[in-house]
Amino acid sequence: MSRAIYPGSFDPVTKGHLDIIIRASKIMDHLTVAVLDNPRKVATYNIDDRLEMLRMVTKHYSNVEVGYFKGLLIEYAQQKNVNIIIKGLRAMSDFEFEFQMALVNQKLNADIETLFMMTNSKYSYISSSIVKEIAAFGGKISNMVPPEVHEMILAKYNE
Amino acid sequence: MSRAIYPGSFDPVTKGHLDIIIRASKIMDHLTVAVLDNPRKVATYNIDDRLEMLRMVTKHYSNVEVGYFKGLLIEYAQQKNVNIIIKGLRAMSDFEFEFQMALVNQKLNADIETLFMMTNSKYSYISSSIVKEIAAFGGKISNMVPPEVHEMILAKYNE
Amino acid sequence: MSRAIYPGSFDPVTKGHLDIIIRASKIMDHLTVAVLDNPRKVATYNIDDRLEMLRMVTKHYSNVEVGYFKGLLIEYAQQKNVNIIIKGLRAMSDFEFEFQMALVNQKLNADIETLFMMTNSKYSYISSSIVKEIAAFGGKISNMVPPEVHEMILAKYNE
Amino acid sequence: MSRAIYPGSFDPVTKGHLDIIIRASKIMDHLTVAVLDNPRKVATYNIDDRLEMLRMVTKHYSNVEVGYFKGLLIEYAQQKNVNIIIKGLRAMSDFEFEFQMALVNQKLNADIETLFMMTNSKYSYISSSIVKEIAAFGGKISNMVPPEVHEMILAKYNE
Amino acid sequence: MSRAIYPGSFDPVTKGHLDIIIRASKIMDHLTVAVLDNPRKVATYNIDDRLEMLRMVTKHYSNVEVGYFKGLLIEYAQQKNVNIIIKGLRAMSDFEFEFQMALVNQKLNADIETLFMMTNSKYSYISSSIVKEIAAFGGKISNMVPPEVHEMILAKYNE
Amino acid sequence: MSRAIYPGSFDPVTKGHLDIIIRASKIMDHLTVAVLDNPRKVATYNIDDRLEMLRMVTKHYSNVEVGYFKGLLIEYAQQKNVNIIIKGLRAMSDFEFEFQMALVNQKLNADIETLFMMTNSKYSYISSSIVKEIAAFGGKISNMVPPEVHEMILAKYNE
Repeated sequence: MSRAIYPGSFDPVTKGHLDIIIRASKIMDHLTVAVLDNPRKVATYNIDDRLEMLRMVTKHYSNVEVGYFKGLLIEYAQQKNVNIIIKGLRAMSDFEFEFQMALVNQKLNADIETLFMMTNSKYSYISSSIVKEIAAFGGKISNMVPPEVHEMILAKYNE
Repeated sequence: MSRAIYPGSFDPVTKGHLDIIIRASKIMDHLTVAVLDNPRKVATYNIDDRLEMLRMVTKHYSNVEVGYFKGLLIEYAQQKNVNIIIKGLRAMSDFEFEFQMALVNQKLNADIETLFMMTNSKYSYISSSIVKEIAAFGGKISNMVPPEVHEMILAKYNE
Repeated sequence: MSRAIYPGSFDPVTKGHLDIIIRASKIMDHLTVAVLDNPRKVATYNIDDRLEMLRMVTKHYSNVEVGYFKGLLIEYAQQKNVNIIIKGLRAMSDFEFEFQMALVNQKLNADIETLFMMTNSKYSYISSSIVKEIAAFGGKISNMVPPEVHEMILAKYNE
Repeated sequence: MSRAIYPGSFDPVTKGHLDIIIRASKIMDHLTVAVLDNPRKVATYNIDDRLEMLRMVTKHYSNVEVGYFKGLLIEYAQQKNVNIIIKGLRAMSDFEFEFQMALVNQKLNADIETLFMMTNSKYSYISSSIVKEIAAFGGKISNMVPPEVHEMILAKYNE
Repeated sequence: MSRAIYPGSFDPVTKGHLDIIIRASKIMDHLTVAVLDNPRKVATYNIDDRLEMLRMVTKHYSNVEVGYFKGLLIEYAQQKNVNIIIKGLRAMSDFEFEFQMALVNQKLNADIETLFMMTNSKYSYISSSIVKEIAAFGGKISNMVPPEVHEMILAKYNE
Repeated sequence: MSRAIYPGSFDPVTKGHLDIIIRASKIMDHLTVAVLDNPRKVATYNIDDRLEMLRMVTKHYSNVEVGYFKGLLIEYAQQKNVNIIIKGLRAMSDFEFEFQMALVNQKLNADIETLFMMTNSKYSYISSSIVKEIAAFGGKISNMVPPEVHEMILAKYNE
């Protein structure tokens, strides 16, 4: 059985993330989308908001579960009894960093494989930081995030 | 069920290829390793030799099957009822070409996903063409190909 | 006045090429789309076919002219009294080669500038060689080339 | 008419920036060199100093105007009635980031094109941060910035 | 006589660093391994700890000396009467940054050459920041740093 | 003692090659510039012409010797009792290929190190194939090759 985890910051969830989630859920028996709770990185949305975003956009996918973790991904993967880590790649600079992390994770546990999916070319220009940058200046982001997330972001910046 | 295909020229099969095959066979329910019979590319080993190499190195992996195809990969994948294409990436230049092919294949059939695995860093310097180059000049290739393949290559170049 | 040239093999013309032509024609006063007649490269379509493709797809753009040249681009640019060379970039590997060519052309004539436009992400997976590869195996290329070119390619491969 | 904007931090203006300004001014009818006033980035020189640097180095170019903006580039470009954004590329890492930004800007306003110029190879090693790093340790920067800017930087660090 | 300097942060020293040191010491007459004391970067280990790490791992290499510097590398190299700077490259992103620095240093002093060595593929996944990241979460780092350094790191994080 | 080899096709010798030769000769005790006689690649200039070019441009450098080899570089390096291979890098695409070759050579003989020097930015646009392309179309190449080589190329193409 193929049990996979798709980790990320999801700060916020973009259409690019959702595209990877949907495609991965089709080819894996079970998929955990996991928010990394990184104490050393200042996030715009708190963990609860990000979990809520993920729950909203994944609610129609029955083999998708939402979770979060602190610490090493590979230890969380072991706890969840997962044998596959899914990563989305948009560009070359992603590639180098993600390959290094995949090699590190392979050294830490050779039984867990990292598989890379390319981001849909429609969404290759989108990243969480671009979305926040544009939203902060009042630009239009409705093409960049799922509608449920859009509402949450507008609420956050209009408060 | 996850049914995957790992396509390539395998001219000849290297330790890098075998590493991908073994790792992919562990996380997929079924894996077809498929030799591309490309009429426009001059191969060093004929299709039968390459199929024989693959059969020798995969014989202990019960969920691995060996095959070959002409024409478009995506059509062969449909025939084999496969939903996943596995590609190994060694380096950036691989990355660009393989991403373009993955996008093309996604346009041709959106139900078949391409998943990338990184080559083990131990084998990142190995490619089929490097092996042939070194073998042609009498250099030592025993670290670069599986033992069964090594014997077949030596036989070929010593005839 | 901004007079530009957009050179290429156009073997065949793709939707990616047409996208660059239309966008460049909007920001330049005059645009020459020029087929390179390279005696050392075997083309699938002859010069007349490629000129015909370009004429068909550009006929509604009044400031666009179609031409062809042999030899050095920079000399053709001088003859056409052009001060700008337009190049489309899809990927990193394009980038390196095109930057080297731009530096060479700058050394040969510092008054002619090379300007790069990025390919629309919708078309980033398309290249002339991919189109020919897929067409040769009977795959569907209607999403990859303009309709007028599609008919010409089908005609060519069905003869 | 080709009206372009060349945006940047210009913290400080380098010989590489000036080279792009001069070359762009030759092929564009009008060029606005625009300082980005980014409230979230700590600059070494304040906006007034940077505007002064740009005015000094561009004063002999009659079709060049100096300006500054806060917020989204694309909105400033609309206000200035500009149809072209000029970006200089030095290296691959520039390329990836700039292409993403160009795609974002294209989504926000498809009528404004981003055109890339390659940095002159003589100046490819220069960046504003390198200049500041070397100046901070008392190294020689006279080859890296225009003479007018050099004087201003020396004044700043010798106070 | 070939006198070289191998500069770095060494925060902490990894097996990748040690591999470069050993290989460089074999082909150079004299090698200074030099810790950069960068006042603007927060280090995990202080200069004395890092010098101690380097002394421990290099003590059996008679032509290797350990040192540290503030300010510009090129000035330190002049003081040490060195004509070669050694840099290790792991990946493409290293490459771009290091090439820019090498060009800058060449402008500052054309008599000092930068030579690049590739990192052993066994260690290509290791960097000082990865080591600290894994150590901070209690992961296993014994494969990533020399044994002497391992003890010092464990001591540091277990205090 | 540092004994190095700088291998290449030198078809023809460019100003970029000469720059590497001069800089390497300054930091190495002895340098062999070695023409690869590759039977599978069609050269424009024969081995004797290329050796003559190298002898002309290196005659004032007393520690530089010119040679040629067939077969594996690593075996030639062993014969010449060399412990260093020098390679010039111009760009990223060079980098990947050369790193793979360096890893292969390290596996074949771990006592011979490959050291990379960056090409002077003045010559980064020059390659042997660019020179031949421009010369073939009657373009000006006097800035791209040493004067002695220029005369030989003009003679060759004007016969």
